[in-house]
Amino acid sequence: MQMSRAAVLTHFDSPLEVKEYPLPQSVEPDAALIRVTLAGVCGTDVHLWHGQLPIPLPVILGHETVGVVERLGTNLIADWNGQRLAEGDRVTWSSSITCGRCYYCRIKRQPTRCLERKAYGISYDCRQPPHLLGGYAEYIYLRPGTSVFRLPDELPTEAVVGAGCALVTSLHGLERIGIEWGDTVIIQGSGPVGLACLALAKTSGASRVIMIGGPEHRLEIAGQFGADYCIDVTKTAAEERTKQALDLTDGFGADLVLECVGIPQAVSEGLELCRDGGRYLILGHYGDAGTIAFNPHVVTRKQLVVAGSWGFEPRHTSVALQFLARSRSQFPFENLVSAPFPLECAFEALQATAGWATAKSVIAP
Amino acid sequence: MQMSRAAVLTHFDSPLEVKEYPLPQSVEPDAALIRVTLAGVCGTDVHLWHGQLPIPLPVILGHETVGVVERLGTNLIADWNGQRLAEGDRVTWSSSITCGRCYYCRIKRQPTRCLERKAYGISYDCRQPPHLLGGYAEYIYLRPGTSVFRLPDELPTEAVVGAGCALVTSLHGLERIGIEWGDTVIIQGSGPVGLACLALAKTSGASRVIMIGGPEHRLEIAGQFGADYCIDVTKTAAEERTKQALDLTDGFGADLVLECVGIPQAVSEGLELCRDGGRYLILGHYGDAGTIAFNPHVVTRKQLVVAGSWGFEPRHTSVALQFLARSRSQFPFENLVSAPFPLECAFEALQATAGWATAKSVIAP
Amino acid sequence: MQMSRAAVLTHFDSPLEVKEYPLPQSVEPDAALIRVTLAGVCGTDVHLWHGQLPIPLPVILGHETVGVVERLGTNLIADWNGQRLAEGDRVTWSSSITCGRCYYCRIKRQPTRCLERKAYGISYDCRQPPHLLGGYAEYIYLRPGTSVFRLPDELPTEAVVGAGCALVTSLHGLERIGIEWGDTVIIQGSGPVGLACLALAKTSGASRVIMIGGPEHRLEIAGQFGADYCIDVTKTAAEERTKQALDLTDGFGADLVLECVGIPQAVSEGLELCRDGGRYLILGHYGDAGTIAFNPHVVTRKQLVVAGSWGFEPRHTSVALQFLARSRSQFPFENLVSAPFPLECAFEALQATAGWATAKSVIAP
Amino acid sequence: MQMSRAAVLTHFDSPLEVKEYPLPQSVEPDAALIRVTLAGVCGTDVHLWHGQLPIPLPVILGHETVGVVERLGTNLIADWNGQRLAEGDRVTWSSSITCGRCYYCRIKRQPTRCLERKAYGISYDCRQPPHLLGGYAEYIYLRPGTSVFRLPDELPTEAVVGAGCALVTSLHGLERIGIEWGDTVIIQGSGPVGLACLALAKTSGASRVIMIGGPEHRLEIAGQFGADYCIDVTKTAAEERTKQALDLTDGFGADLVLECVGIPQAVSEGLELCRDGGRYLILGHYGDAGTIAFNPHVVTRKQLVVAGSWGFEPRHTSVALQFLARSRSQFPFENLVSAPFPLECAFEALQATAGWATAKSVIAP
Repeated sequence: MQMSRAAVLTHFDSPLEVKEYPLPQSVEPDAALIRVTLAGVCGTDVHLWHGQLPIPLPVILGHETVGVVERLGTNLIADWNGQRLAEGDRVTWSSSITCGRCYYCRIKRQPTRCLERKAYGISYDCRQPPHLLGGYAEYIYLRPGTSVFRLPDELPTEAVVGAGCALVTSLHGLERIGIEWGDTVIIQGSGPVGLACLALAKTSGASRVIMIGGPEHRLEIAGQFGADYCIDVTKTAAEERTKQALDLTDGFGADLVLECVGIPQAVSEGLELCRDGGRYLILGHYGDAGTIAFNPHVVTRKQLVVAGSWGFEPRHTSVALQFLARSRSQFPFENLVSAPFPLECAFEALQATAGWATAKSVIAP
Repeated sequence: MQMSRAAVLTHFDSPLEVKEYPLPQSVEPDAALIRVTLAGVCGTDVHLWHGQLPIPLPVILGHETVGVVERLGTNLIADWNGQRLAEGDRVTWSSSITCGRCYYCRIKRQPTRCLERKAYGISYDCRQPPHLLGGYAEYIYLRPGTSVFRLPDELPTEAVVGAGCALVTSLHGLERIGIEWGDTVIIQGSGPVGLACLALAKTSGASRVIMIGGPEHRLEIAGQFGADYCIDVTKTAAEERTKQALDLTDGFGADLVLECVGIPQAVSEGLELCRDGGRYLILGHYGDAGTIAFNPHVVTRKQLVVAGSWGFEPRHTSVALQFLARSRSQFPFENLVSAPFPLECAFEALQATAGWATAKSVIAP
Repeated sequence: MQMSRAAVLTHFDSPLEVKEYPLPQSVEPDAALIRVTLAGVCGTDVHLWHGQLPIPLPVILGHETVGVVERLGTNLIADWNGQRLAEGDRVTWSSSITCGRCYYCRIKRQPTRCLERKAYGISYDCRQPPHLLGGYAEYIYLRPGTSVFRLPDELPTEAVVGAGCALVTSLHGLERIGIEWGDTVIIQGSGPVGLACLALAKTSGASRVIMIGGPEHRLEIAGQFGADYCIDVTKTAAEERTKQALDLTDGFGADLVLECVGIPQAVSEGLELCRDGGRYLILGHYGDAGTIAFNPHVVTRKQLVVAGSWGFEPRHTSVALQFLARSRSQFPFENLVSAPFPLECAFEALQATAGWATAKSVIAP
Repeated sequence: MQMSRAAVLTHFDSPLEVKEYPLPQSVEPDAALIRVTLAGVCGTDVHLWHGQLPIPLPVILGHETVGVVERLGTNLIADWNGQRLAEGDRVTWSSSITCGRCYYCRIKRQPTRCLERKAYGISYDCRQPPHLLGGYAEYIYLRPGTSVFRLPDELPTEAVVGAGCALVTSLHGLERIGIEWGDTVIIQGSGPVGLACLALAKTSGASRVIMIGGPEHRLEIAGQFGADYCIDVTKTAAEERTKQALDLTDGFGADLVLECVGIPQAVSEGLELCRDGGRYLILGHYGDAGTIAFNPHVVTRKQLVVAGSWGFEPRHTSVALQFLARSRSQFPFENLVSAPFPLECAFEALQATAGWATAKSVIAP
């Protein structure tokens, strides 16, 4: 029986363990077996590791993955876009499977809140067959209902994993909050989500984008991506950077502020950075990181719009891949990617992400 | 010299005092002098009385007023809608004057946040001439730039003051948050703002409106206005009413929840009442009533939209008056109005509003 | 072998013929066999009869149908809303089946333009098994993928067929063009689509609705549904009624004009009835009824928005049924329904619809 | 008495005549006298010359102008943005003055359709004082109510006139039709409006922009501005270019098609280029150039949105000037500008525009 190694989270806040699981003997008609080329380490993986979201254990982490089709179910003849699919093709896929039938899928047309949603690298106890349902592994099994995307030849694997779920999450978030041509935009956080928001804001007609983030190596990428100003959080106190950002927006604050940090205090800071009538997107709070003191009067008086956004849909993956392909020179997401960690060092990769040591850690199993 | 009596707020949290001020000797070309017929007591007046908004003292309160034109400036030949205006006409007016020129008026087209905004009954130190710039008085002076509206004969004064600034504030709020045909709506608060939101929700295609408010005499009006369900806050604990409201919405919560209370805890409660992807309007927090503990993760995970809204524009007054005229039988706002308090009892009127003893206290000077 | 009779369109512009087809021997796991209770005759059926849309012949007409579940596939345990389904249940269904996979279904989220869309009563050559795929018949076979809706007991069959596809088509159309609280609305056409638009406009906050239609028996229903003014097209020339409608809208025209007629000249007339900056919905042109002379300068100068809408989605059926149930007293759609024609008289029913002799002809097979 | 020369349209379809008018003796408190530096020749001027819009004669043409403040009214201390204004400043201004009071200005918030709107270079009989109300002249008098904009030093006069009213008109048009991140866009027409739409589409997230225009010198600028494909109308028949454009959009057509031509047949062609559910902006039909045969069924079946847009507001000028300043290297609008024609050759300049000989003819008086 052929086996696949995988990096497994067995206990919260403990090192990942490399274990072996059998490859499935056969592939269902609508499923596929994929040999993993590169797996991204997402900030959400750090939240999961801390136990900030309710997940089963043990779990193979990894929900941003590129691989090569090893075996293809007999029905799976086309990818989500309708392009022919074959063994040997390089592919990625949407990390979630939704039921298409529940209150949120059908009636509210909001599948990201599907009542039956399952995500690779997050929702599956890896003791249950088919075991291999996370990206930190040599092989991953794509279940029926997965939205698979064949990658165009000109799009490097590193760009796809570099953009990871950050780009599609940002696409969904900006779709929900809206961005108007000419808006001034402040982005809080220069990790993958903040950088993806930067790329989208710059191509959506933002007149100026101010990035508040760090450390320096991430702000350098922000500069490459066209940030008009960068404020380094590792070198400024909250009041100081708030003052700087307000000064840059004529004292009024920005039309649109995007929270891509995940620390509750960033929200208090961000609300101050919105002009009256401005819009605020809370995009970075995938994990439950606690509460802040919040005054509802501020929302009334400043007549703000504050929105959240959760995950993304396959249609976002589809357009994100097109964007990556056509905008490679302007937004080289491959530049975010660290030197690949081998599977044995998956935990080091996770720690590098937790400590902002890399822009984007990746694992090459 | 002819004098006018007025009820004046001289110290926060102290009884109003009746004082006398001289009528202006002449009326500027674009101004008017109005003899007050009926002045509404707004919940905001209670906030002002507590000092929850920065205002000058002493001040003549009263920003929801109907009166008769006593003297008309020579240029003021037409009302805001372009209808001819004459002495003896019954009129009302928008409580705020905006500059039309600042960043918010011009560039952001959001005059409710005008940097130079002044409101009758709120922004004027009554020691300065022309003194009479609040509704709790026998006369009020309408400064140049006021948006005046001649009232149609078929629309009773009590209906206009009964709807007061609640209806126009609600109109603006619903314009900002949006209401979709078929939405389920929960309204928190059955004061004038909550009842106005109810009238607007019922005429905007809401499939069901659940009113959470009290006391009973206000819920009776909610019933007359077509509330599908009422939950009495004076008879239920927070968890109990949350459970009831969720049960009424299949356990998911409502598409749209409207906060019309002004107590911070209502916001914590209201966020729970929103379905995932739902919308929440914080409309009742005109005064600064303090903070709550707030978890940004909830906004991300439930992908909510939370919006605020401040005041209203003359165009809202224009359509509100039309609505009142055409919907009188369905929404008899005059039923909110208490027996009129004489000017000497303005403070009792204010206390009745503070204690929810009336739906809408009014003063007949 | 059990047979079902059906009224068949064999040649355009020729009488329907009653033929017999065998009932299917078995029902696929996701399919159902329905005994038809009542089938609506739609204005589109008249267009189909004239050959104004590309369809196969022979075809069993009928796409607005209520029936009783005779046999249920083993998988079909719940209706579209997730409610349990059983033999003997009274049901209706969305007339179209879409592929869920093509460019329009997936990428543009616009399933009404699905490249593989098939509609009962329209798209199926009835010589092919399972033959019975139209509503003008004793039995209809619901194919896998059909969106079935169990009807609540309190909702009469006549109301469902009376609203027919007009209500859901109108819902989709108004969703696309938008209606704002306070809009003045002119509706061209008082057939089922016009009357459904009237019900929706009245519950969406329209300040006034002017109905331009006829004949008198239909305008009477418009009056019952709350039309503020009716202009009878059978008694007025085009210029005369345009003048009347403009006079009713202060000479400017309406904020929103809804075309529910299907005659090209109505569009010329309707564009004149829009105020500058107004919106025009072309909803009645399901058939190709020819061209008009059209001046693009009018769209530029009046800065109009002109939109079209095609068909509807299952989610529209879901909310339409709820609306019918909760608004029966205000909008008694059953009043549109004629005395039922027996299946042998299906052609008379069709002629009655073509000649506006009924508001809604129905067939009871 | 000091005189100013001006190029005057005295009869439709006849050469312009250079005449002299006296400079005003004094300047009203809210007015200004401007010495013209550069006046743009707009495609609309050609329509005016043909008599395709109702205007008074004789008229000094010219509504896109940059000049230097010669004399300033005592009240005119700040420009529209609130920046200090002084004699000697280089300025431009919005071509229209609106009343701020009529049904369209106030109630519908749509000042471009102001009932009292007057435009420099279009609406004024130059026999009446102050005579000098068009840009084809040595001096122009800016009346009270004009929205004046001081130009930043880094923004060349040629860029402002090169963008002309095309950029602001396009801004308004795209605001009305909407552009979504990722849209495929087809632009019909490569004159100033088409090129401005190109710049805006490229900065609004369009995934691909296909320009259908000509002649070659204009398409070269389109290439500089980032057009992804150009189709030359001078070298292709209508069917051929339609086929090319459809092939470039997978046979479906574009999400958004922008008409910037002004020839009615372009609208027939453009509707074919929209995908089902697509949007079409008729932006180029400022003049009445006649009718086309139009089938309303197409709008219903393809469920299109077709919108028009008229003129622009001062707020568009404000953001357009900022855009020109920040995007000069990407969109060098100065490249559109011809060698300046002297005032005596204003008619040659007009003919050059009519014959597409230049991208943008300009007059230096």
